[in-house]
Amino acid sequence: MNFNRIKNLLQPADAKIVLLVMDGLGGLPKGLGHGTELETAKTPNLDDLAKQSLCGLHQPVGTAVTPGSGPAHLALFGYDPLAYEVGRGVLSALGIGFDLKPGDVAARGNFCTVDETGRVRDRRAGRISTDKNEVLCEMLRQVEVDGVRLFIQTVKEYRFLLVLRGEGLNGEIGDTDPQETGVQPLKPQARLPEARQTAELVHRFVEAAHEQLADEQPANMVLLRGFSQRPQWPQMGEVFGLRAAAIAGYPMYRGVGKLIGMQVLETGESLSEELETLEKRWDDFDFFYLHVKKIDSAGEDGDFDRKVSLIEEVDRHLPRLLELKPDVLIVTGDHSTPAVLRSHSWHPVPVLFHSAYCRPDHVARFGERACMTGGLGPRFPAKDLMPLALANAGRLRKFGA
Amino acid sequence: MNFNRIKNLLQPADAKIVLLVMDGLGGLPKGLGHGTELETAKTPNLDDLAKQSLCGLHQPVGTAVTPGSGPAHLALFGYDPLAYEVGRGVLSALGIGFDLKPGDVAARGNFCTVDETGRVRDRRAGRISTDKNEVLCEMLRQVEVDGVRLFIQTVKEYRFLLVLRGEGLNGEIGDTDPQETGVQPLKPQARLPEARQTAELVHRFVEAAHEQLADEQPANMVLLRGFSQRPQWPQMGEVFGLRAAAIAGYPMYRGVGKLIGMQVLETGESLSEELETLEKRWDDFDFFYLHVKKIDSAGEDGDFDRKVSLIEEVDRHLPRLLELKPDVLIVTGDHSTPAVLRSHSWHPVPVLFHSAYCRPDHVARFGERACMTGGLGPRFPAKDLMPLALANAGRLRKFGA
Repeated sequence: MNFNRIKNLLQPADAKIVLLVMDGLGGLPKGLGHGTELETAKTPNLDDLAKQSLCGLHQPVGTAVTPGSGPAHLALFGYDPLAYEVGRGVLSALGIGFDLKPGDVAARGNFCTVDETGRVRDRRAGRISTDKNEVLCEMLRQVEVDGVRLFIQTVKEYRFLLVLRGEGLNGEIGDTDPQETGVQPLKPQARLPEARQTAELVHRFVEAAHEQLADEQPANMVLLRGFSQRPQWPQMGEVFGLRAAAIAGYPMYRGVGKLIGMQVLETGESLSEELETLEKRWDDFDFFYLHVKKIDSAGEDGDFDRKVSLIEEVDRHLPRLLELKPDVLIVTGDHSTPAVLRSHSWHPVPVLFHSAYCRPDHVARFGERACMTGGLGPRFPAKDLMPLALANAGRLRKFGA
Repeated sequence: MNFNRIKNLLQPADAKIVLLVMDGLGGLPKGLGHGTELETAKTPNLDDLAKQSLCGLHQPVGTAVTPGSGPAHLALFGYDPLAYEVGRGVLSALGIGFDLKPGDVAARGNFCTVDETGRVRDRRAGRISTDKNEVLCEMLRQVEVDGVRLFIQTVKEYRFLLVLRGEGLNGEIGDTDPQETGVQPLKPQARLPEARQTAELVHRFVEAAHEQLADEQPANMVLLRGFSQRPQWPQMGEVFGLRAAAIAGYPMYRGVGKLIGMQVLETGESLSEELETLEKRWDDFDFFYLHVKKIDSAGEDGDFDRKVSLIEEVDRHLPRLLELKPDVLIVTGDHSTPAVLRSHSWHPVPVLFHSAYCRPDHVARFGERACMTGGLGPRFPAKDLMPLALANAGRLRKFGA
């Protein structure tokens, strides 16, 4: 169902929908005979809920596709990630509340370390502190490039935002981040003829930044990626008829929410702070997106046991969420981040879908293998979760007579 | 596979296909620990057949979509309901055998009750009898509107058919039925400029009808919906190479069959009358559609137990159907109508697909949860059932060399 068809079926209802995203939830067993992170975790509350729910595994983008955080979240929000593509630059900008204007080109920056020959030694400059980042950004603000106005903003740790503002800019530019060490940063390449001028401006900025940071250690260079311009997309209020709120501690996820018209609520980074925000604002919205980031970070670090215990922590908080009695509750991840792979992966993601009318299946615990035989099936398209939530919330009328 | 691809693969065969549709079959449990209507019903014959069949759950239109009867049936007949949309007016006309001409605009009418201020009090006028309906239709036939010829036909109980015939008519007109009580009927709105004249003619008819019925109780007004013109669609004989017959007691379903070229056989409303028709005409067709309406009505009435016993009644008739030894037998519903929701719903529908070459799965009984793990999967697209039936009937050649 495309957005126009869904819009034609919308009807009002009071029911509240909660989407709890455990970032990078899906995993892999350490070896044969072992369980995944989620299967290893003791999750009595999630297991109880699974028994009353419709379960399955969802695919954020499609079979075999390892999704980035942006596309994975857009899919959960009901936006086909193949139709709604956005660069990481724009997401970073929105995430720190930077007021991106139409025509601005945004890029995500990393402070990095290069050796004397200019080869990248550490793509994250030893994960410098946010304080240090702020000092470095102030230095970069000295850089001037003729013909364009530059904005440099600290994001977090080694990450910053670069925005170019001026006439006739175009975001179709390749990354300068080579995504590996031991090689030189890439020269920014225009992907379209219309982007040649912008690529040249970026090149001049990078040269000047390198000069400006030459005496710094470890952060003596910058890498840029995700050049992009803010898209004009349909908003959630319009396509789903929902007053939607994002409760997410990390900038990136707040950014995705903003892009599709969610109101981003002030909150802390812990789940208990997020739940407090949820409780306080319960009456103000129809749809709440709650984001738990650290599970993904544990997966990226290859820390199987920490990922297990972070999942268990979410399980312990579940009763507090259930006390609010959401009419529809979806518990899932945005993608898989198996500790054994230390990265996002293409594996389908466990999902638990609960409502009074969900038609529970036989799944008796929340885990990858159990969910494979659930009523949502083993490859449910993530973008169909939102319409299903609307149906269960009584927000969709009958199609046809 | 689209129709052109299927047509290119057709080959002749003698095999017979039967599609038994239990209207509104899919259900929901009354509460946790309970079964659905179908799971509660004692269905030894269907369970035996399930053991020799390929089972699953189908989705008539798509995930989260609650289908009307028209789209749901078209999907079972192999027609993508998103590509083949038709209004209820046309379906009503075809269902009572009204000879709709190209250009005619048809609408479904309800006799209803309005209060002194013109607000709708009962959208169905207390479900008046068909006899009373005939008297009222005769009264409405007194109404004349300049510039158009009007046809008024009794359908059943409170339902009638309105057809406008004349030059330059257009069916893009909004319903006058507000779908709720306590408000005035809507004024017919043209959805396109070309439909303005027709909307004005409809408005004049409604005004005159209101006057004509003013002294009647409870049926003192009419509501109109589903304005539409007969589409020109590919016929089943052409796209599937089948001589197809519809055995259905209710007008609506006979109408859907006619629209795609089925021959509608005279029959009664009970399953045993329908089976008698099937037996008599067994040699004359390749494909038979049998429709059992009352299960849906029990669901719409919220009568869980009656729905259970009507399903059991179908089960008792199954051996009689099996005696004909259909080469392919599909037993399913067109959509779900859970008694707890008292309406059609978005839930996938149990389906049992039997043929000598169906490759049976592990499903040992016919029920929602059992079918979730069947070989057709938990979300089989309904429109793929027809091609699968053709394949099992030996009617499709190999694709490619």
